[in-house]
Amino acid sequence: MRQSRMLIPTLREAPADAETQSHRLLLRGGYIRQLASGVYTYLPLGWRVLQKAAAIVREEMNLTDAQELLMPAMQPAELWRQSGRYEVYGPELVRLEDRHGREFALGPTHEEVITSLMKDEINSYRQLPMTLYQIQTKFRDERRPRFGLLRGREFLMKDAYSFDTDWNGLDTSYWSMHAAYTRIFTRCGLDFRSVQADAGAIGGEGETHEFMALAEIGEDTIAVCPVGDYAANLEKAEYQTSYQPEHLGTRISRRANLPAPHLLATPGVHSIDELVTFTEQEAGNFIKTLIYLMDGNPVAVLVRGDHEVNEIKLKNHTGAETVQLADAATVLQVTGAEVGFAGPVGLSIPLLVDQEVGLMDTGITGANQSDYHLSGVRPGIDFALDTVLDLRNVTLGDPCPHCGSEMNLVRGIEVGHVFKLGTKYSEALGAVYSDASGQEQNLIMGCYGIGVSRILSAVAEQHHDQNGILWPASLAPYQVHIVPLSIKDETQMGLADELYEKLTSQGIEVLLDDRDERPGVKFKDSDLIGIPIRIVIGKLAKDRQVEWKERHKAEAEVLELEAALSRITEHQLK
Amino acid sequence: MRQSRMLIPTLREAPADAETQSHRLLLRGGYIRQLASGVYTYLPLGWRVLQKAAAIVREEMNLTDAQELLMPAMQPAELWRQSGRYEVYGPELVRLEDRHGREFALGPTHEEVITSLMKDEINSYRQLPMTLYQIQTKFRDERRPRFGLLRGREFLMKDAYSFDTDWNGLDTSYWSMHAAYTRIFTRCGLDFRSVQADAGAIGGEGETHEFMALAEIGEDTIAVCPVGDYAANLEKAEYQTSYQPEHLGTRISRRANLPAPHLLATPGVHSIDELVTFTEQEAGNFIKTLIYLMDGNPVAVLVRGDHEVNEIKLKNHTGAETVQLADAATVLQVTGAEVGFAGPVGLSIPLLVDQEVGLMDTGITGANQSDYHLSGVRPGIDFALDTVLDLRNVTLGDPCPHCGSEMNLVRGIEVGHVFKLGTKYSEALGAVYSDASGQEQNLIMGCYGIGVSRILSAVAEQHHDQNGILWPASLAPYQVHIVPLSIKDETQMGLADELYEKLTSQGIEVLLDDRDERPGVKFKDSDLIGIPIRIVIGKLAKDRQVEWKERHKAEAEVLELEAALSRITEHQLK
Repeated sequence: MRQSRMLIPTLREAPADAETQSHRLLLRGGYIRQLASGVYTYLPLGWRVLQKAAAIVREEMNLTDAQELLMPAMQPAELWRQSGRYEVYGPELVRLEDRHGREFALGPTHEEVITSLMKDEINSYRQLPMTLYQIQTKFRDERRPRFGLLRGREFLMKDAYSFDTDWNGLDTSYWSMHAAYTRIFTRCGLDFRSVQADAGAIGGEGETHEFMALAEIGEDTIAVCPVGDYAANLEKAEYQTSYQPEHLGTRISRRANLPAPHLLATPGVHSIDELVTFTEQEAGNFIKTLIYLMDGNPVAVLVRGDHEVNEIKLKNHTGAETVQLADAATVLQVTGAEVGFAGPVGLSIPLLVDQEVGLMDTGITGANQSDYHLSGVRPGIDFALDTVLDLRNVTLGDPCPHCGSEMNLVRGIEVGHVFKLGTKYSEALGAVYSDASGQEQNLIMGCYGIGVSRILSAVAEQHHDQNGILWPASLAPYQVHIVPLSIKDETQMGLADELYEKLTSQGIEVLLDDRDERPGVKFKDSDLIGIPIRIVIGKLAKDRQVEWKERHKAEAEVLELEAALSRITEHQLK
Repeated sequence: MRQSRMLIPTLREAPADAETQSHRLLLRGGYIRQLASGVYTYLPLGWRVLQKAAAIVREEMNLTDAQELLMPAMQPAELWRQSGRYEVYGPELVRLEDRHGREFALGPTHEEVITSLMKDEINSYRQLPMTLYQIQTKFRDERRPRFGLLRGREFLMKDAYSFDTDWNGLDTSYWSMHAAYTRIFTRCGLDFRSVQADAGAIGGEGETHEFMALAEIGEDTIAVCPVGDYAANLEKAEYQTSYQPEHLGTRISRRANLPAPHLLATPGVHSIDELVTFTEQEAGNFIKTLIYLMDGNPVAVLVRGDHEVNEIKLKNHTGAETVQLADAATVLQVTGAEVGFAGPVGLSIPLLVDQEVGLMDTGITGANQSDYHLSGVRPGIDFALDTVLDLRNVTLGDPCPHCGSEMNLVRGIEVGHVFKLGTKYSEALGAVYSDASGQEQNLIMGCYGIGVSRILSAVAEQHHDQNGILWPASLAPYQVHIVPLSIKDETQMGLADELYEKLTSQGIEVLLDDRDERPGVKFKDSDLIGIPIRIVIGKLAKDRQVEWKERHKAEAEVLELEAALSRITEHQLK
């Protein structure tokens, strides 16, 4: 394609509200433009990259024998009521009414629609297993759209759904999809990890993995073993604890010999950070006591001062539907003190104690009296250890649950998700099949998502330098960028055209910068756009020589045109 | 693909509310399923056909150097307010509010979005001309969705927009797109006509053509010359009239010699049909007088009794913004009579007279008195002929405006539309460029639509028999349907698998019916699905012989496997 005829509006500066490199570079490179918060137009270059990502996804899905279809964005609210999600989904669900006042949702996902379809169209176990997928525009009214394509309100997703007759079948479908995802993200050139994640609200048997592209801007934290393959989302991550319930009795009886707690005046000192400064003690010597409302009932959750409560674990251990920090009034009512001075001693509400607190001989904690803490509080002596659980987030250096190596914490962008749904939707919508003995059984489902548009941001975030994007060949909008320095020089343009024709006739995608611009402008744009191979045609054109430059390498070299041609062909074959 | 693994839920009967053959057959063939009124899922076969249609559109668009992009469905209401369409568009525009109460429309079309984009990104005449297109899901809340994919509420469109510096440039862009459309619909195997249409509400200089697939179920009527290439939508169609204003004086003076009108008692006889029966006169002897409100003001419109008023012509001749039939109260006030007895004699409101009425020496018309008509009313004598215009729809046999041949009236499905928009949107949104002298000028635009999903219905409507669809090869979901009669017969299945492997290794798309069904069921499904070539493998498999059957031919023939193979390859090369 001739660049002078294309809409590639590069920018010297990105808008001030573009917070990440990928967002800035996709805007500056003329790939995308914002129409409204979280709503983007894919300009011709962006569209090309998006299509390449979609094509990779499609190829790999088809290799798993999944069948492509296309479901509507407009979904009757009635279906969402049947699954129980219409109310639960909250304000992220885009809702509308048609001219007759009938309610619809714009699909953020299609479990309801596909389950309803399969309910009607699948009768017998002989039709199973079956996996269906679509690549389709989704809508989600994010509270805070940001990072360009990473958290948008209208975005392109691949969503797949598997239907099996038994759990072993689901396992096969699940891992087949997991393998396809691994191939897809590898082909997209992403540095990623498959991480264990929490089944969360979707429920079901709930085995689930997230595919995380590693990046500082990622919204998720992942615990990763540097030795083995253990990797888990922070919400789910476990560690090898030295806490052993069978030793607790011994520990507690030893603590009985320690001095009783004494009051510590801590006027206006609320937080652990403030306490650390005030008392000159390490954070690990404190017992943090947080009052939670679980399904509306107050409980006290105890973790070590240098740890954070993991609310997902709290929920999963207790089976509570809702878990939230109590408001100040409740804290006052329950502890008799303002927020910041809660402690377990003398509390009459249930205590949920993290296992690391169980290991402490003494700790400093709130005195349930404003402006006072208690020092020397002995777990198991001064408060009960009836319920000791893993209630905290893992921290940097915690031992891997598999091998004990010190784990790293890294950040990731979720680009894919595989999930064993089980019968949650088939039960709710009555999607059954007849088994070999003629009995009706619920379909056993899995769901599998890929954020196709999000891949662009993740790749740009991982592959860029200060001058622009470095697209992997698999996603690059064009494979070769031909840049004649002066379009008024007939020799240069002649050679540029010759190369262009030879490459395009081989089916190689070429962008030819035929704009009447200064070389500096052309190079800046070329780096920004980030096509893998650049061929500069300058004064050496008279000798049929060109400059070969790969985007990810610093050095350029001079080649005969024919040598450049055959080297490009080699690159294509890789 | 092996049919046993695919979701192709064929039906013996279509739902009762499927009114057209195409709708019934797309449902019965397992191509689509309705999710809500006018909202469809494309099942795997339907998705394949849709993708083929989209690929043809994309190829031909790219050949015109149009660039593909993707704009959002969610469009800020503010943009639609700027163009003035937010209120005008009416209930067909799907509206919604986001969580912050900001208003959005789901795009039925993208003039506002693309004009706003070009306003920001185009500065200079050097960047022009440029045509951009997308293939994207559109939303339109039809009052009465029907005919399956023909009039849906969520559908796939190709919309393109051209931007030029002058009207000659627009003309070039327009006809280049017109040529591409001709190639597209030809490749889709459609019997279609490009017809002149009315510019209507979009305004602008307003040259516009509709591409009409001819079909009885079409919602538009088209006047077509059987000799030349004149074709026009009924709303726009003209004819060669024998009315000549310069002869009117002579005609009127001759009519002065005719007897004056006389009253005719017509108790309870309101309509032309009733009058024809009551008076035993032909409809062409009547003058139909209709009271209209044009921009709120009453006028009388006169056409011959056997003609219909063309409200588009009425609007275009008079420049009125709104044209609607007056209510009974207004008719009574203006004529002094109830509806059915209006006539021009003695009326004090403006008279708009169709030119065919100007040719009548006398006519029977309402007497402006309930239950009475006037006979022998002389145009130009008994009422004024100040405003004589072409105000009627053409009728079957009217002479072609180009050559005078008797025109046919046929019905058509609008599958495409090309339109010279001019500066309507660029003016409203301030989309300007700098011309060679540095002056700001409005971008000159054209817009071009294709109903991609509608193509499926149009093709199925034109290509079917009582047993199912007959897909043209260009759109068929698969090229070859291999049907072994008994999958338990190892020889048959061996030959079927051999053929399947050989064809798929050549890149030919094959559906292999490996289901354990009776031959009758397989044949019925095969006809219904409508793949162009069917290879039946039965008892002759032992001699490596198969049955060759083309879907659009009645006869089958027995061939050696190798002969069948090479014949298929020949078909692919066509």
